[in-house]
Amino acid sequence: MSAYELWYWPGIPGRGEFVRLALEAGRIPYRDVALEPDAVAALQQELVTPRDHPPLAPPWLRAEGMTIAQTANILLFLGERHGLAPDELAGRLWVNQVQLTIMDMAAEAHNVHHPVSVALTYEEQAAEAASAAHAFRTDRIPKFLHWFERVLLHNQPWLAGARWSYADLSLWHLLEGLAFAFPQRFAGVARDCPRLIQLHARVAALPELADYLGSNRCQAFGDGLFRHYPELDAA
Amino acid sequence: MSAYELWYWPGIPGRGEFVRLALEAGRIPYRDVALEPDAVAALQQELVTPRDHPPLAPPWLRAEGMTIAQTANILLFLGERHGLAPDELAGRLWVNQVQLTIMDMAAEAHNVHHPVSVALTYEEQAAEAASAAHAFRTDRIPKFLHWFERVLLHNQPWLAGARWSYADLSLWHLLEGLAFAFPQRFAGVARDCPRLIQLHARVAALPELADYLGSNRCQAFGDGLFRHYPELDAA
Repeated sequence: MSAYELWYWPGIPGRGEFVRLALEAGRIPYRDVALEPDAVAALQQELVTPRDHPPLAPPWLRAEGMTIAQTANILLFLGERHGLAPDELAGRLWVNQVQLTIMDMAAEAHNVHHPVSVALTYEEQAAEAASAAHAFRTDRIPKFLHWFERVLLHNQPWLAGARWSYADLSLWHLLEGLAFAFPQRFAGVARDCPRLIQLHARVAALPELADYLGSNRCQAFGDGLFRHYPELDAA
Repeated sequence: MSAYELWYWPGIPGRGEFVRLALEAGRIPYRDVALEPDAVAALQQELVTPRDHPPLAPPWLRAEGMTIAQTANILLFLGERHGLAPDELAGRLWVNQVQLTIMDMAAEAHNVHHPVSVALTYEEQAAEAASAAHAFRTDRIPKFLHWFERVLLHNQPWLAGARWSYADLSLWHLLEGLAFAFPQRFAGVARDCPRLIQLHARVAALPELADYLGSNRCQAFGDGLFRHYPELDAA
């Protein structure tokens, strides 16, 4: 019986993956509810169960009697408790700041294929998505990636210095997601971002992640936060 | 000379307001750069100034030699340093979780009038905005507000119990913004949320906020995060 439980939808990496990577690289034992047969029903039941600190949506982590929701908040807890971020104030806030910026970009990447409503399918908003994708490719991908590159000019080899933090893991996953969803555009902008590409390679090579990334628990992107619709990509 | 500096765009409350309310209610002295004549030029200059921990966008807070960006991250700092959130782990994480949920809803409220691109005007994406507004009114306003109401069923009189936290102030501002932008729809959903309306009144009556709310430093919403376009509202 693991001390921690990660609750997230099965079948996609989604926002749960940012938490999963920290648990895996931190070698923290956890029960992964998404791997269990009745995961969807269990999540739906939990979402309506009365509790003092209810989550609005997955992911949430059960830990030490707490139900902790919001991806960046879960990571803040794991960072403090398991040394996956600096201890001192400035470093801890900096890693949280970078993580929140990663989550902002992930939300924007999702808005590209669902600009009107999460309650409609992509096909029902494909015209609006085409406009949103143009803006995301033209303005937002360069804005965010150039900012990360600038950050790595002053923070080496990792985002918070000498040791990787949960934000490095999340940034790797964000880059993986962008390269999956917008392969042509990502390749173009990545040419201007050598430090970012080095960081990406450095995370992929972490011994702490080797088992997980080589396992069948590590899921394909599919129809989650990051989606590949060829018509939404361009150089 | 104040110890702290709040950097945010002038002319709108925007995301800066969530920080400003915490500084004001916490009676924390600060320099408000938005009130200074050359604020825009100063912000633009700071955004390109090389530094170890650069902000991607305002707001950011200068404090104790740090440049802290991301609204919820600034509030996390202020909460810890100035007792504007519980000290103990579970309460601190809970307040951060609620704050992140507030920021999610604020971002969605912004996406309603800018569903395609922040680089285009509202008028250039008014048709897409009409579709986004329908979904926001129908699905998202009830989803978020009913969740806050459910939270207040278990957390009284404030979100984290006996004393107000920065998340109570932010929730008040979120409700003000929704009532401004979507007056008809907000009024309808608010009828199902008596605890939320009580919390709203309780924050508005805080003696710690009286000076600020009665001053001309407290700005109208205007064309910021929350915007009132009558064609985007409906009962």
